[in-house]
Amino acid sequence: MISGEGKLIRGQGPVRTGVTAVLPRGRDLDPAFAGWYSLNGNGEMTGTIWIEESGFLQGPVMITNTNSVGVVRDAVIEWAIEILKTDQNLSSIDDYYWYLPVVAETYDGYLNDINGFHVKPNHVFSALDTAKSGAVLEGCVGGGTSMICHEFKGGIGTSSRQLSEQQGGYTVGVLVQANYGERERLTIAGIQVGKEITDFLPDYHTDKPEQGSSSIIVVVATDAPLLPHQLKRIARRVPMGIARVGGFGANSSGDIFIAFSTANSGVANKSLNTDLQMLSNDRISPLFSATIEATEEAIINALFSAETMTGIYRNTVYALPQERVLDILKRHNII
Amino acid sequence: MISGEGKLIRGQGPVRTGVTAVLPRGRDLDPAFAGWYSLNGNGEMTGTIWIEESGFLQGPVMITNTNSVGVVRDAVIEWAIEILKTDQNLSSIDDYYWYLPVVAETYDGYLNDINGFHVKPNHVFSALDTAKSGAVLEGCVGGGTSMICHEFKGGIGTSSRQLSEQQGGYTVGVLVQANYGERERLTIAGIQVGKEITDFLPDYHTDKPEQGSSSIIVVVATDAPLLPHQLKRIARRVPMGIARVGGFGANSSGDIFIAFSTANSGVANKSLNTDLQMLSNDRISPLFSATIEATEEAIINALFSAETMTGIYRNTVYALPQERVLDILKRHNII
Amino acid sequence: MISGEGKLIRGQGPVRTGVTAVLPRGRDLDPAFAGWYSLNGNGEMTGTIWIEESGFLQGPVMITNTNSVGVVRDAVIEWAIEILKTDQNLSSIDDYYWYLPVVAETYDGYLNDINGFHVKPNHVFSALDTAKSGAVLEGCVGGGTSMICHEFKGGIGTSSRQLSEQQGGYTVGVLVQANYGERERLTIAGIQVGKEITDFLPDYHTDKPEQGSSSIIVVVATDAPLLPHQLKRIARRVPMGIARVGGFGANSSGDIFIAFSTANSGVANKSLNTDLQMLSNDRISPLFSATIEATEEAIINALFSAETMTGIYRNTVYALPQERVLDILKRHNII
Amino acid sequence: MISGEGKLIRGQGPVRTGVTAVLPRGRDLDPAFAGWYSLNGNGEMTGTIWIEESGFLQGPVMITNTNSVGVVRDAVIEWAIEILKTDQNLSSIDDYYWYLPVVAETYDGYLNDINGFHVKPNHVFSALDTAKSGAVLEGCVGGGTSMICHEFKGGIGTSSRQLSEQQGGYTVGVLVQANYGERERLTIAGIQVGKEITDFLPDYHTDKPEQGSSSIIVVVATDAPLLPHQLKRIARRVPMGIARVGGFGANSSGDIFIAFSTANSGVANKSLNTDLQMLSNDRISPLFSATIEATEEAIINALFSAETMTGIYRNTVYALPQERVLDILKRHNII
Repeated sequence: MISGEGKLIRGQGPVRTGVTAVLPRGRDLDPAFAGWYSLNGNGEMTGTIWIEESGFLQGPVMITNTNSVGVVRDAVIEWAIEILKTDQNLSSIDDYYWYLPVVAETYDGYLNDINGFHVKPNHVFSALDTAKSGAVLEGCVGGGTSMICHEFKGGIGTSSRQLSEQQGGYTVGVLVQANYGERERLTIAGIQVGKEITDFLPDYHTDKPEQGSSSIIVVVATDAPLLPHQLKRIARRVPMGIARVGGFGANSSGDIFIAFSTANSGVANKSLNTDLQMLSNDRISPLFSATIEATEEAIINALFSAETMTGIYRNTVYALPQERVLDILKRHNII
Repeated sequence: MISGEGKLIRGQGPVRTGVTAVLPRGRDLDPAFAGWYSLNGNGEMTGTIWIEESGFLQGPVMITNTNSVGVVRDAVIEWAIEILKTDQNLSSIDDYYWYLPVVAETYDGYLNDINGFHVKPNHVFSALDTAKSGAVLEGCVGGGTSMICHEFKGGIGTSSRQLSEQQGGYTVGVLVQANYGERERLTIAGIQVGKEITDFLPDYHTDKPEQGSSSIIVVVATDAPLLPHQLKRIARRVPMGIARVGGFGANSSGDIFIAFSTANSGVANKSLNTDLQMLSNDRISPLFSATIEATEEAIINALFSAETMTGIYRNTVYALPQERVLDILKRHNII
Repeated sequence: MISGEGKLIRGQGPVRTGVTAVLPRGRDLDPAFAGWYSLNGNGEMTGTIWIEESGFLQGPVMITNTNSVGVVRDAVIEWAIEILKTDQNLSSIDDYYWYLPVVAETYDGYLNDINGFHVKPNHVFSALDTAKSGAVLEGCVGGGTSMICHEFKGGIGTSSRQLSEQQGGYTVGVLVQANYGERERLTIAGIQVGKEITDFLPDYHTDKPEQGSSSIIVVVATDAPLLPHQLKRIARRVPMGIARVGGFGANSSGDIFIAFSTANSGVANKSLNTDLQMLSNDRISPLFSATIEATEEAIINALFSAETMTGIYRNTVYALPQERVLDILKRHNII
Repeated sequence: MISGEGKLIRGQGPVRTGVTAVLPRGRDLDPAFAGWYSLNGNGEMTGTIWIEESGFLQGPVMITNTNSVGVVRDAVIEWAIEILKTDQNLSSIDDYYWYLPVVAETYDGYLNDINGFHVKPNHVFSALDTAKSGAVLEGCVGGGTSMICHEFKGGIGTSSRQLSEQQGGYTVGVLVQANYGERERLTIAGIQVGKEITDFLPDYHTDKPEQGSSSIIVVVATDAPLLPHQLKRIARRVPMGIARVGGFGANSSGDIFIAFSTANSGVANKSLNTDLQMLSNDRISPLFSATIEATEEAIINALFSAETMTGIYRNTVYALPQERVLDILKRHNII
């Protein structure tokens, strides 16, 4: 799996947005088995109808702002056609080809001029073409640039868990674009720290956003050989990780999750049958708890990585005061 | 796949019911991959929640009358425990074991004393223990004993299609318990024969049943190596076969379908991973059309196999007058 | 309900595409209750996750080609913001607002230069702003411009059914963008006319499209007061209408359906509770059969309205030879 | 809403099981709007297919042990027929009637002789006929008699939340049959108390149950006027409450939830349309968080109410040592 980010921040201007790309197999469009789930569907993730039908995630998962889902989607098609022509020597368009990209979003209009439609195809190409393996950037980057989480500055966060050898040694990696939540519900390591940090609230120079508005997109990647229906099971554990940080899937929230496996390549080959491996259902529970733990931690990491930002309308959202959090946890004998 | 029938018909009495058993792997409780779909859920099929979760169908699919689902379900558990003790030498109950049988139903109270609760565990054991491979009994047998279909006598019907060698040579077999439909919608080979056979209507000595009431249960079996999500796709084609005979999933109908594959045995073994085969999504379409065609034909076969029956309240439901049907088809140059 | 079409046909060039708009409440963005279903999800309909969650369809349903879903989606947001500013006097963007448009597609690359991305926002605005009530254009118009159906020229088709006064007098209207199907399966009025018209096959100057490829989008509108879960029931009957014309939901097909009700306005008001009406479940069956019949007829109407077209690669797809069809139906004593 | 319990505990014998009944409208079989969700479907809840289709929960929700679902289901039909005859003067069976009871289960074979099939129809009638409104019994009662939760003695637990007047003043009540979880994950008020109470583990004289095995059934009742699709939203929040106590939906767990509303009576009347009220989607979020909080608290209440029990194989499961828990919470400055 590789990932890339395109970030747009321009001058005083209110442009504070971007695009995040997660590519299960890099530039290889060979599908990965996938499943998805929506805790609260006040959001968009294109391409999910085909994932549900086929079990296939083809190409990248893209995350951007709400009003740029369309431009990102069509640009991914352009990018894929170019790849097919160059990498795969598909010289002629005569091989009729269609493709249904996966693009998700969260709303960033509290800090970004979202109605200015600033994301353009070249930002998409850039995010895709500069994607690389290794550490994923966290905080105010890519689609997560203008996120707000529990009324602190949010963004992109990641975390992973590796199972023991006896459990197969598989890895579960989680990437979140965290843009949800109320201050008073923020819970870290079981302690309701949000109730104890009532300052550092955002400065809004317009109407305050609705309580609990906005969203969280979660991408779960694993190398365990899970079938599509098993990956849906994984996606359905994500809410339990969010619950541990204080989210509850508010009505105004678009909480949509996708899980994919990098195992079992070549599943879309044109031969009659394909040989696969399936992880036993009886051995899947450790992946469930790994997903929950990594989701919880990825949200916390987004909060710890993000920096104070001033954006449109001179709204300012503050970074989580980390020392304060640590003090609270100490007071409760957690650390 | 083997199947068995228990049939209860007693004297003048109103007992006209039974149990049908379809065993994907005979007495072997090794799960088969499965998927299910409900066109109109005014009915019951127990065990579907686990099928959806795990992709596993363990043990038989049972079909009986609406009020006997419970007794059949619990009896299947008794039967399975006995099998585990005898066939698998599971001598001790210390191996904590639970099992979630699949039992479906249609309502037979127009001919059977359904509120007399006449199905007993021994009928279940008998249907299971006498099941054998080979030709499946059709017409007024097993759970289909008192069925009514398009206001003619219905029952159990079966049909199958074999794909060409190029398509993999796989077989799709369909079993229906057909108990739905209005006379005027009955369509055979595209011709609305029901509109032309307005006699032979049931003699009801009580209130006439609601239009379009009752149900159809459909079991689709295949040896193609389909994964659970692919089997759900198969189950979702069943309504298209029913549509061709004139069904439409009326509100009062319990139209519930299950599809399973006998390929990929051993998927519940306790090792970490299992090797599987998957039929390519790109090669699945012939199985879709085979399912639709076999469903259509199985319903017609149920109608052609059933015989006139008199039951509770001296209600009489007549067999389809086959010559009349053939005459109509000839008049339309279909045969 | 009003509808509009934007059509792009330019010179010898290969531009043969467009946009179709169906507006449940015209320029009023007040949500309509809605439900959706996918028979075979090899396609896209954005906005469905929120429909599933909330039961709300807000604004139009748009249909275009596969590669233009994105541009149409984002343009609908622009259009909606403009409406809110002008019609509703929402002068300030301070009322943070997001919107998740519903945009569906079928692939038109056999006649249109789909990879040229020719649909632009102004085509979307035009389709929306010129929409009007009354007769809907059929055939090679809007998103349906380059459709191919059962290997004849397809396009947009519509049909409706009105229930009797006793059934409530409600209307069910269906609009299809029909782009699916194999010649040999084409069935009209129960007769397999496709098997008898083996000429008039498309002239392709490139590789022939895969059998059964492409898709059908179906929009069902009713004034019956159905709740969201009841509208999903309506959407799930659409495959039964398609089955009667010879479709079967091939693997390569994006067969996605949405049903909405124009009754129960004001359901998104900000007060605590809203008064509604619900049609009784016990009275819904006539709406099911009306949906199936109108779907079947709308596809036939698309075929009868479309005209022969030559497009990209000088591919030519022929209109259905209507006289031939009528002759066949006469020979089978259907008309 | 009223509830009842039938409990079977006999001598030294291993009979330790029962039946719990929750009746949304008492003996009135008028349906309540309902929705359901399965976090992990290794369990049974009959009747869910019709709930999904119609939005109707008719009659009680029953909870018992895994092997008694069938007997309870059929007995509920007997009970309902009797009610229709007596309460509603439905003197004749000529009014063809069918009914699809809702019966859920958890496995109690670690303390109860589950394979003895000890639950009989009279226990069902008793639970139903003695049901009354007011405080619900908690702990080792009814279907919860032999439950084990986080390796302490579990059972039935309840909790409720009332919304503020501004939020509508509605109540959310939750009943759990809690039979899931590993000791080390037990979390109370955010603190991982299970990690600190490593004694009081069950004494098993047979093989130890699989980690995380068994299940939790949750019933959510509210008087808020929610539609079926909104009640499904409620049911989908239940996992977030379980997560806060340390559950994660293990593979071997049957975690199935149903939510119903006692508002909107008379929705199954035979007239064409019914007047309803719907709570605004924009006002539903407080019900989501109330559901999560009440679920968490109901599980804790089950643990605090249950008493040490010795059952089959002389297995003993210990009650939660409450003082120890309080000490731990004090040490973490939670209380």
